[in-house]
Amino acid sequence: MPIFDAIAFDADDTLWHSERYYAQTQTEFVKLLAQYRDEEYIRAHLYEVESRNIQHFGYGVKGFALSMIETAVELTDGRVSGNDIKTIIALARDMLDAEIELLNGVGETVAQLAGSHRLMVITKGDLLDQEKKIQRSGLGKYFHSIEVVSEKTRETYARLLAEHSIAPQHFFMVGNSLRSDILPILALGGSAAYIPYAITWQHETADPPAGQPGFYQLEHVGQLPALLETLTALK
Amino acid sequence: MPIFDAIAFDADDTLWHSERYYAQTQTEFVKLLAQYRDEEYIRAHLYEVESRNIQHFGYGVKGFALSMIETAVELTDGRVSGNDIKTIIALARDMLDAEIELLNGVGETVAQLAGSHRLMVITKGDLLDQEKKIQRSGLGKYFHSIEVVSEKTRETYARLLAEHSIAPQHFFMVGNSLRSDILPILALGGSAAYIPYAITWQHETADPPAGQPGFYQLEHVGQLPALLETLTALK
Repeated sequence: MPIFDAIAFDADDTLWHSERYYAQTQTEFVKLLAQYRDEEYIRAHLYEVESRNIQHFGYGVKGFALSMIETAVELTDGRVSGNDIKTIIALARDMLDAEIELLNGVGETVAQLAGSHRLMVITKGDLLDQEKKIQRSGLGKYFHSIEVVSEKTRETYARLLAEHSIAPQHFFMVGNSLRSDILPILALGGSAAYIPYAITWQHETADPPAGQPGFYQLEHVGQLPALLETLTALK
Repeated sequence: MPIFDAIAFDADDTLWHSERYYAQTQTEFVKLLAQYRDEEYIRAHLYEVESRNIQHFGYGVKGFALSMIETAVELTDGRVSGNDIKTIIALARDMLDAEIELLNGVGETVAQLAGSHRLMVITKGDLLDQEKKIQRSGLGKYFHSIEVVSEKTRETYARLLAEHSIAPQHFFMVGNSLRSDILPILALGGSAAYIPYAITWQHETADPPAGQPGFYQLEHVGQLPALLETLTALK
């Protein structure tokens, strides 16, 4: 008998690569504006515009595109060319159409766990974009439900768990963001596995809560089935 | 005993005004580009860009903003100024922050029906934007659940009804778009009240299915409680 009623996965950089596309796009963006400003200045200004726009635009590629455009206009004192603006919009469309590349071990692990557990996806970002990525990933069939939310706070998770009639102590979350995937779950009394990704967006950084009950850190998702087995055996 | 297990409302232009903000913004957009092209050309080109971008960007203000920016660059052969681009982004932010103005009768009708029925919101658009609008509308407390979806197809509704364990014949939908709110529900065997709004976005137009079982057309939402009572009495 599994001790968890549901195992939920974050999507971007937990199931598939995502941050690398943001990083690539930012590199293109820096190149585009290189004649106006140095790289450090461009990156810092973009982060500033993104941060102030999050409350209006939320997470995801569309808000990121609008922030890049606004940054380009501001940094160039309005001199950015129409063609460069078109290039930025094309970069955003490329991100939305980018191939889905699963992280190592995700395909097998998800297929294996779906045999014994109810699996969910809980992710931030743009609704349509995340739905299309799940579809293209080929993983859709393994997940009992897909929840796209605007923020991953303790309240969001509490609402989702109530809607799905899952007690926090029987809920296990897997993700690469301490701030969004791990800390709110621990605060609710649930369990969570933190699997760091190579790159973490500045906005999502936090300190690992080592030693806190319910907290586990893994190097890769392939270690998850063994962890769940151990926890079940200890119960 | 109510004969419907749930009554679901579309949000934009059913609960509160929305299309008028799009219309106002488009008027501003036309003014901004008036020196380059005539009004008709600008509107036609914007609609063309929006239509081709829907598959990438989905519905909502952010995608609309990106389409306006792309249109501005295309229509001016890249000569649009950085300041005009900033103005377009500001117009989008204004739309996202616009006051919520309920349609006549919505406050009373929703409060009244919440006493006897399970109420839902089913809406397209950007997740964060719709959540914030429901919050600001003051109507949140009346709704049992809020569903933001990327498309309102028959499949979408079938999935939602299954998730909420509602049989289509016990489901009643209220909305201003025949294409998105009414026709898919009738196709599933449910009932729906079509309440036209003063302006309908070109993308959402369709012919009223007069005479089809389960189809009702109302002039305003205040007529809804009486319709539901009549249907219950007839049962």
